[in-house]
Amino acid sequence: MDIGIVGLGLIGGSLALDLKKRGVAFNVYGLDRSLDHQKKAKELNLVTDCLTLNQLIQKVDIIILAIPVHNAQEMIVDILNDIPERTYLLDMGSTKSGICDIVKDHPKRSHYVACHPMAGTEYTGPNAAVYDLFDQKPVIICDKEESGNLALEAAQQMFQALNMRILYMDSKDHDTHAAYVSHISHISSFTLALSVLDKEQSESAIFDLASGGFESTARLAKSSAEMWSQIFIQNKDSLLEVLDVYSYWLRKFRVAIEDEDVEGLNNLIKEANEIKKFLK
Amino acid sequence: MDIGIVGLGLIGGSLALDLKKRGVAFNVYGLDRSLDHQKKAKELNLVTDCLTLNQLIQKVDIIILAIPVHNAQEMIVDILNDIPERTYLLDMGSTKSGICDIVKDHPKRSHYVACHPMAGTEYTGPNAAVYDLFDQKPVIICDKEESGNLALEAAQQMFQALNMRILYMDSKDHDTHAAYVSHISHISSFTLALSVLDKEQSESAIFDLASGGFESTARLAKSSAEMWSQIFIQNKDSLLEVLDVYSYWLRKFRVAIEDEDVEGLNNLIKEANEIKKFLK
Repeated sequence: MDIGIVGLGLIGGSLALDLKKRGVAFNVYGLDRSLDHQKKAKELNLVTDCLTLNQLIQKVDIIILAIPVHNAQEMIVDILNDIPERTYLLDMGSTKSGICDIVKDHPKRSHYVACHPMAGTEYTGPNAAVYDLFDQKPVIICDKEESGNLALEAAQQMFQALNMRILYMDSKDHDTHAAYVSHISHISSFTLALSVLDKEQSESAIFDLASGGFESTARLAKSSAEMWSQIFIQNKDSLLEVLDVYSYWLRKFRVAIEDEDVEGLNNLIKEANEIKKFLK
Repeated sequence: MDIGIVGLGLIGGSLALDLKKRGVAFNVYGLDRSLDHQKKAKELNLVTDCLTLNQLIQKVDIIILAIPVHNAQEMIVDILNDIPERTYLLDMGSTKSGICDIVKDHPKRSHYVACHPMAGTEYTGPNAAVYDLFDQKPVIICDKEESGNLALEAAQQMFQALNMRILYMDSKDHDTHAAYVSHISHISSFTLALSVLDKEQSESAIFDLASGGFESTARLAKSSAEMWSQIFIQNKDSLLEVLDVYSYWLRKFRVAIEDEDVEGLNNLIKEANEIKKFLK
């Protein structure tokens, strides 16, 4: 089977590597609006060749969109308009209800499967592509009843070959949950980075004092601006809700610290400790 | 040389392991107010034996306090009152200006060196003790001009043997910097955990959707309530300052998301990305 990947960054590039390694794809053809990325992807042997969008649509069995959500939303209708009878379209975006709404009534909606692989690193571009990025990770398929059986089977087989755990969710529920367990992590990490830079810009103390704890909470603050600003806007309603909840708990900490309320702080932290059961 | 460690948890236990392994200590004697911890520390061979505080003070060459800051503050005057002429006292607490203030005018202040090793994990107790926890990590010695030369040399030799980078700082400056690069990381992680638990308590979606990014930002939320509630109160003034800065940036994100201000979000995130230069 031949697979076409639009977007040759971390996700697209890593898919290219693994789909070949695991025997799912015979050829992977690529497309990236950055010619540098296309060149790099060929040098790194991520793709057999780079094609135009029209060539890609006609040539491959599965088209995968691994680009920022707003770009996928701009392209998806055009791709579905032209998609051949036995070709399927998957997207890997981090928010799902917007894109699902756009194609809801498209006559070829059944060719499309809305996916979100819960995998990634804070790096971007073809150089960030790594083997086994998806291994044992969850992937969410949204609104599966809107996809045709053949398209769904093609997607399921692909994710099984990648050794992923497939879960099914309504696209709106997906976005709410993603706001809580993924998007707010990024906002808190960006905010942490900005606070520290605010204070420490001209000082070397941060180099000296930053230990493992800081590293791990600030790691996500390296993430791509272009990608995350779009995700935040796409998921605006859920994020405003979670930001209110987050601010509520932050104020609780502030008040307890101001009042030197040991008991109150103890209770807050013990409650937070409950997160243990959800972490490895 | 014989070393006495008060507090046989993550820091005290790991010190015990490495000080023996690296030939600094011939015997390590321990003390922990938890008899369970004392028993466990002996089982794990962290210590040669457990002694009373009076026995410890008389028997060892260096006494190390590896207990929560407020407990160290309660004990330090009594220990200095009884400390023999050639015995030195180090503490490993996470805030330094409070304890330095307490002993400022003590006639045996010169026996004491105020230290903060920037090393740790989110685990606690004797079982959390590991080899090489301090290797290549920074350690801050505060208000070194208040320590006597011999005490300072003993501390320096110990940290060099542990392969730590020694830095010197005023105790008040230390606490301000620690608020920015360590303590606020913990508050943001606790807050994140509380927000997620708030929403997801009765649902399994968090198990499915939580990926590496969530793991790394929420990891610190496992940290000890007893220890951190005291650190936050000890470092109240600096923390209230950093919480204001943090809330300011959080509001900026909220407004930009609410206004769907792509440009504004892009700028915020790009600014946050500058943290790269401070991370590995």
